[in-house]
Amino acid sequence: MKSLALLHAAELVTLAGPQRPRIGNELSGLGIIRDGGLLIRDGKIDIVGASDEIEEAARDAEVRAGLAVVDLGGRVVLPGFVDAHTHLVFAGNRLEDFERRARDESYEQIAKAGGGIWSTVEKTRAASEADLFAQATKHAEWFVKCGTTTVEAKSGYGLTLDDELKILRVMQRLNQETPLEVVPTFLGAHAVPRDSSAGEYVDLVINEMLPRVAKEKLAEFCDVFCERGYFDVEQSRKILSSAKKLGLKLRGHADQLTNSGGAKLMAELGAATADHLEKTDEQGMASLKSANVQPVLLPGSVYALGSTSYPRAREMIEAGLAVVLATDFNPGSSPTPSMPMVLSLACTQMKMSPAEAITASTINAAYSLNRGGAIGTLEPGKAANVAVFDCEDHRELAYWFGFRQMHSVYVRGEQISF
Amino acid sequence: MKSLALLHAAELVTLAGPQRPRIGNELSGLGIIRDGGLLIRDGKIDIVGASDEIEEAARDAEVRAGLAVVDLGGRVVLPGFVDAHTHLVFAGNRLEDFERRARDESYEQIAKAGGGIWSTVEKTRAASEADLFAQATKHAEWFVKCGTTTVEAKSGYGLTLDDELKILRVMQRLNQETPLEVVPTFLGAHAVPRDSSAGEYVDLVINEMLPRVAKEKLAEFCDVFCERGYFDVEQSRKILSSAKKLGLKLRGHADQLTNSGGAKLMAELGAATADHLEKTDEQGMASLKSANVQPVLLPGSVYALGSTSYPRAREMIEAGLAVVLATDFNPGSSPTPSMPMVLSLACTQMKMSPAEAITASTINAAYSLNRGGAIGTLEPGKAANVAVFDCEDHRELAYWFGFRQMHSVYVRGEQISF
Repeated sequence: MKSLALLHAAELVTLAGPQRPRIGNELSGLGIIRDGGLLIRDGKIDIVGASDEIEEAARDAEVRAGLAVVDLGGRVVLPGFVDAHTHLVFAGNRLEDFERRARDESYEQIAKAGGGIWSTVEKTRAASEADLFAQATKHAEWFVKCGTTTVEAKSGYGLTLDDELKILRVMQRLNQETPLEVVPTFLGAHAVPRDSSAGEYVDLVINEMLPRVAKEKLAEFCDVFCERGYFDVEQSRKILSSAKKLGLKLRGHADQLTNSGGAKLMAELGAATADHLEKTDEQGMASLKSANVQPVLLPGSVYALGSTSYPRAREMIEAGLAVVLATDFNPGSSPTPSMPMVLSLACTQMKMSPAEAITASTINAAYSLNRGGAIGTLEPGKAANVAVFDCEDHRELAYWFGFRQMHSVYVRGEQISF
Repeated sequence: MKSLALLHAAELVTLAGPQRPRIGNELSGLGIIRDGGLLIRDGKIDIVGASDEIEEAARDAEVRAGLAVVDLGGRVVLPGFVDAHTHLVFAGNRLEDFERRARDESYEQIAKAGGGIWSTVEKTRAASEADLFAQATKHAEWFVKCGTTTVEAKSGYGLTLDDELKILRVMQRLNQETPLEVVPTFLGAHAVPRDSSAGEYVDLVINEMLPRVAKEKLAEFCDVFCERGYFDVEQSRKILSSAKKLGLKLRGHADQLTNSGGAKLMAELGAATADHLEKTDEQGMASLKSANVQPVLLPGSVYALGSTSYPRAREMIEAGLAVVLATDFNPGSSPTPSMPMVLSLACTQMKMSPAEAITASTINAAYSLNRGGAIGTLEPGKAANVAVFDCEDHRELAYWFGFRQMHSVYVRGEQISF
């Protein structure tokens, strides 16, 4: 049996705690072990403790046989970040939109001018599956270099049956061929295609796309962009209800640009998450709480759009919601794969504490992806997904910003080389 | 003679142009050569052109003798960033302040509670010169990893004669022993020490510190924190006038927290730069213009303080000012060494174009440091300080954010290894 002992973390941030998403003060409970270590066996965490306990356990004859030992050199060690909202698979970039936004044009103006989602749809449709896989592999490497080991990834730049399936197959292949774990979400209802009415497209999503996605088991979740100009509450309800009947779990883009009832719809349908929530009011928060829906906050897109309408994280925490932070990685509104950058945004712009931000981007994110028992903390039995950072205090992850502090990353006990 | 040919940049961003700081539309003139290359001889740029021209020149027998050739693989190539405002040398960090700010305490509240500049002064005084050098060397490496090859660095965490000299000697040693070029600025008047009145301390700065700094040639510039609660306009004028008489050039922290006349003072004294300017009004901008003072904008500190009062970059550009961007790297208000992060902030929060931001952080910054003829562009005769980025379009430097795109860095023609 293959074993790995990781020793001498300045802070081993275990996040050990209740076997459910963390709320209120629990968000600050990082379960830090100073001079901590891990014993990893066959890709899973076997023992967590002080370095001398790990060294003691490693003296066991059975363990010693196939043992490798790594001195972490007084660094900060976390479970790999879990990024619960990304649009990982797309072709090209949106540099033209970026320049237009620097000239103060709005999201909606840019879309009307031929930019926005539609320009990425055209590039993604034109890309072969192999090209798309090559670009997504580059994105996947960026994530791992930032310390992220699991991402949720949404389709939604295809908007035809074949192109949506192509994107979901790329995710499947990423899962098999890269170190990054990818949790696939079907977001056929990301935008209404230009050659279709919303009604026709909703029918296509429900009658052709969803059954095929479910049959081929290409997605675990279904998502909808519930927003003015995209899919209204009634259309979103139809799509998500159909998805639910097919056994998919639900997530939703809700109340990003307007307080349009998205959060309430996610509560009504028992979704796992409601994402964005920049415009959600107290009633929306209360409905999320009553239905145990996790809010996924995406400060990267608020920042990159030059807005100051950050979601009201403090009120959500006070309302008892199990807050999640994610990058929203996408070429239009959030071109960052970096969870440390999101921690910085959360602390400086949304007044979350470093501990709250870390919990929101590890164990709470894992629960939102139905993987709370498998990843997101450093506890015995979980996958040995471990991120090591070149600093001595976990708060430094959010404090220093805009550059790489990641030192090394382990996925299921294997160190990733770059 | 040692030669190096760098070939096949997707975009060689030369910034070739007038031999003076760039204003107005000139800020957008990046002088990009596609499939460009450089011939470097003895650490200086010899030829700049299309890759085939460089290859042709490299066939010359004299050049071929000691020639190394590097294929840049279709990446973006820039002159190394010039960061014209940093507080590079300090001990420790300010994690406690960072957490307090996440609880919404103000800069001034934190200072009163024992945080702020004073806590860094205490740690810096307590550190030995060797310890301080070790910490600053780590900071210097961060800068180079972000693509920066020259920084201005200010003293100011000593506030006694001996401690200020210690900091300036650390800068001198960084210059000699690390790849980073450090331009030293004496900022004795960074804060009033606790055991002194402002008046007494101004006298100390003028009568003891400045003569010694000038005599030992430990600084090229003198700076003052001209602000309510620090040094008022009259005290700032006294200090900077004394420095000027001793042959030092001038920079100044101006109008950061209040519109207190700092910009006008810098214009009156003919300073090289006025830095911060978050609160400067039209009159302040006009006085900078009339005296050719360069504004140094520091969006990193606005961001990290959770403020939205970014300096009015667009108005300054329209007023014909030769805008500079810098990190303001320091442990309190701007813990980032990353010029790419500053480009992102400039484009998303201050509505500068990517081209304007790049000019502001290379050639304009070089002129502000009295080095416009030596660094800041890729032109024959200049130091071969070259930053290579893993992307194909210069706009990607500001577009993707929060992670490292730097591929490799050359200082005076030598590749830096990390």
